[in-house]
Amino acid sequence: MNCFAQNDAKKDATILKKLYDTSLLNGKSYAWLDYLSNQIGGRLSGSVNAQKAVEWGEKELKELGIDKVWLQSVMVPKWTRGVTEFAYIETEPGRTTNVPICALGGSVPTPIGGIKAPIIEVKGIEDLRKLGSDQITGKIVFFNRPMQADLIETFKAYGGCVDQRYSGAAEAANFGAVGVIVRSMNLRLDDFPHTGSMSYGDLPDMDKIPAAAISTNGADLLSSMLTLNPKVKFHMNMNCRTWKDVESFNVIGEITGSEFPNEYMVVGGHLDSWDLGDGSHDDGAGIVQSMEVLRLFKEIGYKPKRSIRVVLFMNEENGLRGGKKYAEVAKNKGENHVFALESDAGGFTPRGFSFDCDDVNFEQVESWKSLFEPYLIHYFAKGGSGADIGPLKKDGIVLAGLRPDSQRYFDYHHAKNDTFDAVNKRELELGAATMASLVYLFDSYGVK
Amino acid sequence: MNCFAQNDAKKDATILKKLYDTSLLNGKSYAWLDYLSNQIGGRLSGSVNAQKAVEWGEKELKELGIDKVWLQSVMVPKWTRGVTEFAYIETEPGRTTNVPICALGGSVPTPIGGIKAPIIEVKGIEDLRKLGSDQITGKIVFFNRPMQADLIETFKAYGGCVDQRYSGAAEAANFGAVGVIVRSMNLRLDDFPHTGSMSYGDLPDMDKIPAAAISTNGADLLSSMLTLNPKVKFHMNMNCRTWKDVESFNVIGEITGSEFPNEYMVVGGHLDSWDLGDGSHDDGAGIVQSMEVLRLFKEIGYKPKRSIRVVLFMNEENGLRGGKKYAEVAKNKGENHVFALESDAGGFTPRGFSFDCDDVNFEQVESWKSLFEPYLIHYFAKGGSGADIGPLKKDGIVLAGLRPDSQRYFDYHHAKNDTFDAVNKRELELGAATMASLVYLFDSYGVK
Repeated sequence: MNCFAQNDAKKDATILKKLYDTSLLNGKSYAWLDYLSNQIGGRLSGSVNAQKAVEWGEKELKELGIDKVWLQSVMVPKWTRGVTEFAYIETEPGRTTNVPICALGGSVPTPIGGIKAPIIEVKGIEDLRKLGSDQITGKIVFFNRPMQADLIETFKAYGGCVDQRYSGAAEAANFGAVGVIVRSMNLRLDDFPHTGSMSYGDLPDMDKIPAAAISTNGADLLSSMLTLNPKVKFHMNMNCRTWKDVESFNVIGEITGSEFPNEYMVVGGHLDSWDLGDGSHDDGAGIVQSMEVLRLFKEIGYKPKRSIRVVLFMNEENGLRGGKKYAEVAKNKGENHVFALESDAGGFTPRGFSFDCDDVNFEQVESWKSLFEPYLIHYFAKGGSGADIGPLKKDGIVLAGLRPDSQRYFDYHHAKNDTFDAVNKRELELGAATMASLVYLFDSYGVK
Repeated sequence: MNCFAQNDAKKDATILKKLYDTSLLNGKSYAWLDYLSNQIGGRLSGSVNAQKAVEWGEKELKELGIDKVWLQSVMVPKWTRGVTEFAYIETEPGRTTNVPICALGGSVPTPIGGIKAPIIEVKGIEDLRKLGSDQITGKIVFFNRPMQADLIETFKAYGGCVDQRYSGAAEAANFGAVGVIVRSMNLRLDDFPHTGSMSYGDLPDMDKIPAAAISTNGADLLSSMLTLNPKVKFHMNMNCRTWKDVESFNVIGEITGSEFPNEYMVVGGHLDSWDLGDGSHDDGAGIVQSMEVLRLFKEIGYKPKRSIRVVLFMNEENGLRGGKKYAEVAKNKGENHVFALESDAGGFTPRGFSFDCDDVNFEQVESWKSLFEPYLIHYFAKGGSGADIGPLKKDGIVLAGLRPDSQRYFDYHHAKNDTFDAVNKRELELGAATMASLVYLFDSYGVK
């Protein structure tokens, strides 16, 4: 290592320390999250709360005194849950046990008064296909393959199950099912049903069937009752609805680069959330951490060489319209995006990042490892980045995702208990400082 | 690396995977903790609950079918809190604001009806000494130096403050104070006072003054009221009491070694807890993880070469009598202890271990790092181990402490909210598997 590089390492260490100290001693992320979660709350795309969140984000970014703040219009889907869903298991007429369900995002409603039908359990889509129309027609299909608890990274366990939620209804409808119940994507046994997006694919409207998630405790109960008596029936009642698309916005703030203003670096999360909780982990945390990156730079007096943008993406959950729109506009304007970092894995203790980039840039990241050691940041791996920044992918861009500890994430994900009290202030602040540190390093040394 | 070593690494990787899989898929630690926390509860040394915990530990270890299970008698202090403490700030006669306090463990009570006196804030013991008797006599001293939020490892922040709690009363009494209030050792702002041990040193009984912790919110309130009006008074009422020492027990279980039965390896935590919560993180987690190490070995059919003991130490919190007794008996019997591992830092996601050992053994540990990588265990450092195993220290022994993520630990430590619901099942299970893996490796390769 030459003398120049050594000097830089010392300077870098000093700046990282300033970023961490400021986030922990004088951070704003937690107070922002308090407002977003407790004063606004759940903010599904197209809702009044989503609009409030847009206005709040714009106002807060403007108060930072950064160079530019603007809204980027984007049409988003609008789906509403309606009154709380209701379901029971019926062992014989008049003998029923209620179980907690919630409609999956995008589902059609049941007919008024609900549906009641025999229910059949499958462990996944392949299992369903084996059974075929004979055994499926006229029934509610119960997808009950649990998340694999022996996988250390819970996102892998999620990835191994979520096809049931996303495609289960379309597949089951093809075999004549009248409804779908999916075991919640939750590693814990509890009473919270977890919603999430689903798709009917190219199914005609008249063939769409209602789809709901059932809590993990409810799923275990239903499964054991089916074992005792395969003739139990299931009743479900939902009055969710899909409306016409409505206008919403990505919220964007920028510190314009002092040396390379035409090289853009993005840091962001998604501003929309599901409607059941207040979306503190998913993805309020990512929103306030991303805003905090720019605030920390201002606070410690760091003037970036490249243009740093914070983007509060709209509609990650059920459409990704915001992410697609941002990339489309960037492309049309010929903006040279060199780096993007997303935080969308919860506000837990940061462990590191995963990178979607070429080897040269990954080697550069690995050369920074020791700078992160004092903060117990140790995880630097190739892998995915984030859904919202995915559409920016092209040769020469570095895409990165913050990787917090994942053990508790699916306890809260898309459920009623994803609330502010489940976020620890220090864990959130450490994440923001970790993100700011990576952005600082890429700004200083550039993308190779 | 030679062929033999490679084969071993492969075998080791297979065994570690079995340990982690078994803990996550078929673990018993969480169910054990549920019983210890929810059926027994807080178990301060000398209490009925502590005795229940001893009986429970012995019974559960016997059910494991290990080679030996026995109780080791030890005399422990007995201190009781009595009725819930009560305190208020009085701005003028009749105008009072209640604040949450709790007696520090070992404190004398206030006189019946409590005490009321002017209160003076200090930032620590040095600050107190500067003020001297003139300003302290007749007053309650309010120690209000907060934990340093910019320290990444929260135990360091604790270490930087806990002298106020441990020695504050003895110091203040020397300057004529009539009572002591200490800001809770908590990085979060909330309403829970955190107890913990304190000592009067060699102060005569008649000079001892009552000492209590105040919640962090209460401390901030009191501090700001003192700024507005230095003449406010403080009232505190406590009827805690120290009784004669009583008999209690360490609970010990052993799998006798197949090749080196006279080399002992200990894994343990402490069975006693404070009385306010149910002691789930401190140290129910360490107890059930330690028990799980032996159960995992049985479960995967691993027969250790060395004798592995699980020790459920009694009285870590306010005396360390169990740890001292165990070491004393071991020494008297001439038992050759080569390794001891303690879990007493909460049931959070494990990050690694700290080691109190010589360089040769630490190098051996470092050679195992890659085996732990799939489980995101990355922290291997020299440092402290655990209070209970400390008395075993001698040349040639390896002492180790499990190091879980520390960010949330002091949210719960010694407070009413240290309860079962604050423990995540997977985080607890990962800790148990991580401990079992280290014990397995030291058993396989020996202590150098």
